Amino acid sequence: MFEHLPPAVEIREVGPRDGLQNESEFVPTEVKQEFIRRLAATGLPTIEITSFVNPKWIPALADCHEIGRQFSHLDGTHTTALMPNLKGLEGAKAAGMKEISVFMSASESHNKANINKSIDETLRQFSEVIPATKAEGIAVEGMISVVCGCPYEGEVDPRAVLRIVEALLDYGADSIALGDTIGVGDPMQVKELLKMVIPLVGIERLRVHFHDTQGTAVANAVTALDLGVTRYDASIGGLGGCPYAPGASGNVPTENLVYTFERMGVNTGVDLTKLLDTGAWIQAKLGHSLPSNGLKAYLGRKIRAEQKAAAAS
Amino acid sequence: MFEHLPPAVEIREVGPRDGLQNESEFVPTEVKQEFIRRLAATGLPTIEITSFVNPKWIPALADCHEIGRQFSHLDGTHTTALMPNLKGLEGAKAAGMKEISVFMSASESHNKANINKSIDETLRQFSEVIPATKAEGIAVEGMISVVCGCPYEGEVDPRAVLRIVEALLDYGADSIALGDTIGVGDPMQVKELLKMVIPLVGIERLRVHFHDTQGTAVANAVTALDLGVTRYDASIGGLGGCPYAPGASGNVPTENLVYTFERMGVNTGVDLTKLLDTGAWIQAKLGHSLPSNGLKAYLGRKIRAEQKAAAAS
Repeated sequence: MFEHLPPAVEIREVGPRDGLQNESEFVPTEVKQEFIRRLAATGLPTIEITSFVNPKWIPALADCHEIGRQFSHLDGTHTTALMPNLKGLEGAKAAGMKEISVFMSASESHNKANINKSIDETLRQFSEVIPATKAEGIAVEGMISVVCGCPYEGEVDPRAVLRIVEALLDYGADSIALGDTIGVGDPMQVKELLKMVIPLVGIERLRVHFHDTQGTAVANAVTALDLGVTRYDASIGGLGGCPYAPGASGNVPTENLVYTFERMGVNTGVDLTKLLDTGAWIQAKLGHSLPSNGLKAYLGRKIRAEQKAAAAS
Repeated sequence: MFEHLPPAVEIREVGPRDGLQNESEFVPTEVKQEFIRRLAATGLPTIEITSFVNPKWIPALADCHEIGRQFSHLDGTHTTALMPNLKGLEGAKAAGMKEISVFMSASESHNKANINKSIDETLRQFSEVIPATKAEGIAVEGMISVVCGCPYEGEVDPRAVLRIVEALLDYGADSIALGDTIGVGDPMQVKELLKMVIPLVGIERLRVHFHDTQGTAVANAVTALDLGVTRYDASIGGLGGCPYAPGASGNVPTENLVYTFERMGVNTGVDLTKLLDTGAWIQAKLGHSLPSNGLKAYLGRKIRAEQKAAAAS
């Protein structure tokens, strides 16, 4: 265990898209812009900035074209965005995106609920969308949800995941992201799934995305790390998926991954203090507390230090 | 990784002591009694019920003698309590406790802050307290705090932990519990510390106690599990250590450990649904929300199911 950890990892911050998409009120475009700039300044190598979807379905991201145009090129930080179909490709192309993610689920019910298609229909669509995107010089990540379990069907057969991985690679996907979207996976399951997926995808092209519903997100990430995985999704403050709502499923807080990896000697390139300050900033802008314990502890320490300073002066 | 996991583990629920000790208002004795009874009914093999301390120092546990007398013997569930000194031993003995824990810190500053003695003074005291306790037929656990880091001194040298472990065993301690009291440890550090401690203590006599301040508690527990550790502390709902307070450091939620271990094929003996219902019950009694995401998700699912049932009727 932990004998041959990778020296460095790449964390993709998904707060601006996955996080803000779940906010009940529209977050002003200026706040999103400032949020992305602040995130980039922490040293985060990659940021998921938006999703080129119909604003009828996701009003929270109705400013995707503006955000895309502004941040498709960002000095020192790679940016990606989601895109469901050829209509989305037009937006991604117009914005000048260099990488997009197409997304689907490993279970029929979740795929149906999320994108209103069967898995086979979605794959057929992606067999056109992926080559068309690549033809525009845009890299494509194939993102697969609910790989550790589905809120409607329960357990998900790893073979269902493998089948989709193979198909997406076959259509030309440059990389694959696996999501434990509802946070039900355990480290043993993650190990077994990754041991099957890694030989197909190749370790450098694989990303993992964990949620912390049962407190297992860091444990699952550390398991992936021990298997050599170097790409992780995370969301500042645990933004996204409200833990108070039915089916609670917050993203793993970025600060938890940065803290853990750095302390294990694995370089993330992220300035943890700047990251926590950015978490405090977006929390204040959103006007509600984010789920991350690490952020709460940081703010508690800050308040205590300020009280001490005030008492001493 | 995970090739030779123990088939079963013993989780000690510390909510009634470690948890309720941190409540700002006194929890009525009847609530504590009902809490312990409900916890025992979930199948939890061990419960830390109270601490035989001077009520001047810890008013929250002023009913330690009553709780001790009532629960020192509990059919099907082993109970333990804390005890700082020979005065505490009188209380533990009068209550009929079968096992007690003496406690100290691995760093000078934390030990001083918590029990107002140097480490050497504490060890001298325990060199009398441990044999005196054993002479009464009461088993003794030596509990060591801040083994992964100290809120005042930062990093803690593992040799400081080892020295205390050796001394406590030397005085006759039957078992050792190591606490990452402020939740700063990472899996690599936990692995390195445990690899040094296990040969001294023996795997069956070692307990670990993790906090979730940085989201690492389950990852650290899984690391201990992979090394064969079978005894864990946990607190229902993450009760104890307020995540909103300076130096936030909630205990690992019991439901997170039960969920993860059971899903990895390791038997805990705990009924997870009964446990979550007990978490919901104590949360309602305390009148404030507990930090556990797992508990929030469970309650969210329940509300949704009830809404569905109401809509259908």
